[in-house]
Amino acid sequence: MLIDGLQCGNFTPEILAELRAGGAHCVTVTCGFWETAIDTMDMLGAWNEMALDHPDLMLIARSASDVERARASGRIAVLLGAQNSDLLDSRLAFVELFTAMGLRSMQLTYNTQNSLGSGCYESNDPGLTRFGKEVVREMNRVGMLVDLSHVGPVSSMDAIRASTRPVAITHANALSLFEHRRNKSDDLLHALRDNGGVMGCAIYRNITGDANLTSARAWGEMVARTVEIAGIDHVAIGTDKSHNMTRRDHLWMRKGRWSRTDGISAGKLTEFGSVPPVFFQNARDIGNLVTGLREAGFSEGEVAKISYGNWMRVYAEVFDGVACDAVKVA
Amino acid sequence: MLIDGLQCGNFTPEILAELRAGGAHCVTVTCGFWETAIDTMDMLGAWNEMALDHPDLMLIARSASDVERARASGRIAVLLGAQNSDLLDSRLAFVELFTAMGLRSMQLTYNTQNSLGSGCYESNDPGLTRFGKEVVREMNRVGMLVDLSHVGPVSSMDAIRASTRPVAITHANALSLFEHRRNKSDDLLHALRDNGGVMGCAIYRNITGDANLTSARAWGEMVARTVEIAGIDHVAIGTDKSHNMTRRDHLWMRKGRWSRTDGISAGKLTEFGSVPPVFFQNARDIGNLVTGLREAGFSEGEVAKISYGNWMRVYAEVFDGVACDAVKVA
Repeated sequence: MLIDGLQCGNFTPEILAELRAGGAHCVTVTCGFWETAIDTMDMLGAWNEMALDHPDLMLIARSASDVERARASGRIAVLLGAQNSDLLDSRLAFVELFTAMGLRSMQLTYNTQNSLGSGCYESNDPGLTRFGKEVVREMNRVGMLVDLSHVGPVSSMDAIRASTRPVAITHANALSLFEHRRNKSDDLLHALRDNGGVMGCAIYRNITGDANLTSARAWGEMVARTVEIAGIDHVAIGTDKSHNMTRRDHLWMRKGRWSRTDGISAGKLTEFGSVPPVFFQNARDIGNLVTGLREAGFSEGEVAKISYGNWMRVYAEVFDGVACDAVKVA
Repeated sequence: MLIDGLQCGNFTPEILAELRAGGAHCVTVTCGFWETAIDTMDMLGAWNEMALDHPDLMLIARSASDVERARASGRIAVLLGAQNSDLLDSRLAFVELFTAMGLRSMQLTYNTQNSLGSGCYESNDPGLTRFGKEVVREMNRVGMLVDLSHVGPVSSMDAIRASTRPVAITHANALSLFEHRRNKSDDLLHALRDNGGVMGCAIYRNITGDANLTSARAWGEMVARTVEIAGIDHVAIGTDKSHNMTRRDHLWMRKGRWSRTDGISAGKLTEFGSVPPVFFQNARDIGNLVTGLREAGFSEGEVAKISYGNWMRVYAEVFDGVACDAVKVA
């Protein structure tokens, strides 16, 4: 059993089948970066169609119990997530509507500043805005998971303090283990721990570093050091694995509609994508991560927490007993 | 107990309280005429907010069991309906997404021709289009009620034939009882009966006629003659009562964004709104309709079917066991 807290790119049923064959039973996919409400709804519609066409392979999960149901029936659970909040079109009410449509997590900002807060690539982070606080409160109310992976450090800390439910850093690493603007300070990881949240450790080379990717064991050892910072109940997997990315997709991620020049990238702007580690070349290799955790010395109980237990706890706390029913009765 | 199959206008909590005081426990409200997806989502958001602010007065119903739950707890159930399909923004996938957001019924066309079919005020009705057939099938699949009130006669007949579930004419009258483009032929009402659907008899003066509105009993007698055409299991109430309408609202209904001149209205284009009958001046008067049915000679069992039983059967067949769960698993 394995839950991946974040992947992105252009998914196909074949990729989901490979992930399942590799031992994954749940993956959060990326429904957009700079997309508006309508754009995002097109993506949700496409996911619904894939689920309708492949009922034996997958289901769109809205709750921890859906994730468990997928596992029990040999399917892979897809959690729909967004890496930005542009989909709100400045409307607080759209948090509830997108939750009803199946979106289960949303990053408050993607790299740059928006009306909610700041992104990790801005020079200044003035923190969570008035609207940002309203959105966090609304996400808490309707059961949408707050994702801080690309959010700026001050805005992230503010969001953790504002949230009455556990939050997620779905895909990042500890800054003290690899220096990068995308990674998270020990202070922030301590606050995440105190909030009951979880960080999914990434494998994406640009924010993980070559040294931590020489083998599955090396990556597992980085996870072990992350556990020393955040605690065994607050560290999980969020690979940031991307699929079938085109040059156009990379440019969209970097620049959206807001720049005609270089935009922003975790890697070199002259490169598109990064070299995957030898132990995670393809979706089916995802099981090697569990092997890496074992080789790093984690006990079976610890492996279970990192591989799926911690995510399942957060999903149950944030999604369940709320999801469909809350929006039903409003 | 009373279900009103359609009202429109600008609702307030006070109006809902008046309807409840008059004996109504469920009303379908109008979420738009010419509005796009985003416009419509704004309306759904406003309804969610009203429900959040007035949990003791109302709930947003998604199922027949929600309607029953509202009644049992002394609240009024609000069913969210749309009087046109412009909200789809030409996307088939949006049928499922709007169902997930709580929209429970949708008229295929409003007065004029669109990409699904034709409206009752066009000179020619070429019938349900390819997209129209896809939409009816999708509405059947996800449990959204097909509404044909303002749909053209050929498109309406095609939609009834295409639908594998009961359809609704939420607010209209029998053409043979009052001649008006908005009203429905005996042939169509027979097809509706055979489909298991229901027509809500209207009170809106322009499509009901002065003679049928001299008293609640006169209206009840019109309903009795409608029952002779369509059968006791296929006739209900759909007043078309409007609330707090402004001149701007009337112009929007008539012209949307598609005309700068006269547009279309069931009444005179120089008038805004119609004179309500003496027995239904205000929302609280809605209970007089039940009195009118009794005065027209209906038995208590027949009154129960017309007042709520027939709508409840259709809601159960179309919404329940589908609504939240179907969109959940897709």
